[in-house]
Amino acid sequence: MEQNRLNQQMDFIVEMDKTKQITRQTYLADGSRKENDAEHAWHLAIMAYLLREYSNQEIDITKTMVMVLIHDLVEIDAGDTYAYDAIGNLDKREREVKAANRIFPLLPSDQAEELRALWEEFEENQTPEAKFAHTLDHVQPLLLNDASDGKSWREHQVTLDKILTRNQSTKEGSALLWDYAKECIDKNVEKGNIQLVNIEKE
Amino acid sequence: MEQNRLNQQMDFIVEMDKTKQITRQTYLADGSRKENDAEHAWHLAIMAYLLREYSNQEIDITKTMVMVLIHDLVEIDAGDTYAYDAIGNLDKREREVKAANRIFPLLPSDQAEELRALWEEFEENQTPEAKFAHTLDHVQPLLLNDASDGKSWREHQVTLDKILTRNQSTKEGSALLWDYAKECIDKNVEKGNIQLVNIEKE
Repeated sequence: MEQNRLNQQMDFIVEMDKTKQITRQTYLADGSRKENDAEHAWHLAIMAYLLREYSNQEIDITKTMVMVLIHDLVEIDAGDTYAYDAIGNLDKREREVKAANRIFPLLPSDQAEELRALWEEFEENQTPEAKFAHTLDHVQPLLLNDASDGKSWREHQVTLDKILTRNQSTKEGSALLWDYAKECIDKNVEKGNIQLVNIEKE
Repeated sequence: MEQNRLNQQMDFIVEMDKTKQITRQTYLADGSRKENDAEHAWHLAIMAYLLREYSNQEIDITKTMVMVLIHDLVEIDAGDTYAYDAIGNLDKREREVKAANRIFPLLPSDQAEELRALWEEFEENQTPEAKFAHTLDHVQPLLLNDASDGKSWREHQVTLDKILTRNQSTKEGSALLWDYAKECIDKNVEKGNIQLVNIEKE
């Protein structure tokens, strides 16, 4: 019985490895290459721990860390959907639910249910932990974009209105971190890394 | 005051990004490329959470997760020292202490001290959390090596005695996970992925 449980856990742990091959659109701070989902989740987990004092509401830090560590596992099957890809976002939920239905049940049922619920909680973005996790998920790429002199923003000609629309709920997790992010956005508008209007469409 | 604290935290968070560029000797499960320190730490943190029931002693799971998330940050400066690199391991401690002296103090002093202490605790390998973290740190590359049909073992012609010497204390964190690892090692000896004697030296 215990051996079967451990085998299921180990199979899941090896399957998870594929997360390291899901490339995001954000570049590393030095702009040398794009980061992947595992690196992103690692970054968020340490950020959650170091920045927890800025959460608007009290949070369970362990729960928040596990949430950010697993929040992109569904992308093993569903792929990364770029925040500013309007078409890709149309069927994102459908693709990710299908992935969740395959991936989490690799675990023993108690852990499968726990991680699935934690992922759904992140997606619904209603609890203090989910709101803080979302704030971090939005602030981390801002930091990397800023560090790489807006490389990904410039490459995708991202406009200010799109960034502000995407970040409508970022302040709900942490008003202070959103203030920091806004300054970072303003600075990059001034530098021309973020466009006020899309030049191609004009 | 608070602004300065936040700036220090953010500078550390951007500096940490370099961890994603420190390559280890272990290949991803599919053998396509070697993994890096950030990916490895992400993997360990989820393993810590999912496998905590197998720790020999009761552990503080949050502390263990933070410990594994930050345990390789010193390699930003010190580089990765391969487990079976006898010469590289001679001055590993010296290089890593120098790195710790530079990297952790980027944080506000309370967090710098906390993370430095956590890293030293990992290195000393005496507490239940450090022992469990070490077990995971040794078992994770075994899992990936096994999944990639021993790619890294074969490349470095690693012998059984070296693996067993390296894993002398793996059972101290979890007897059950060490039993699992031993079966995995035996299987790879049978398959010829792990050598009984070093052919080149014979």
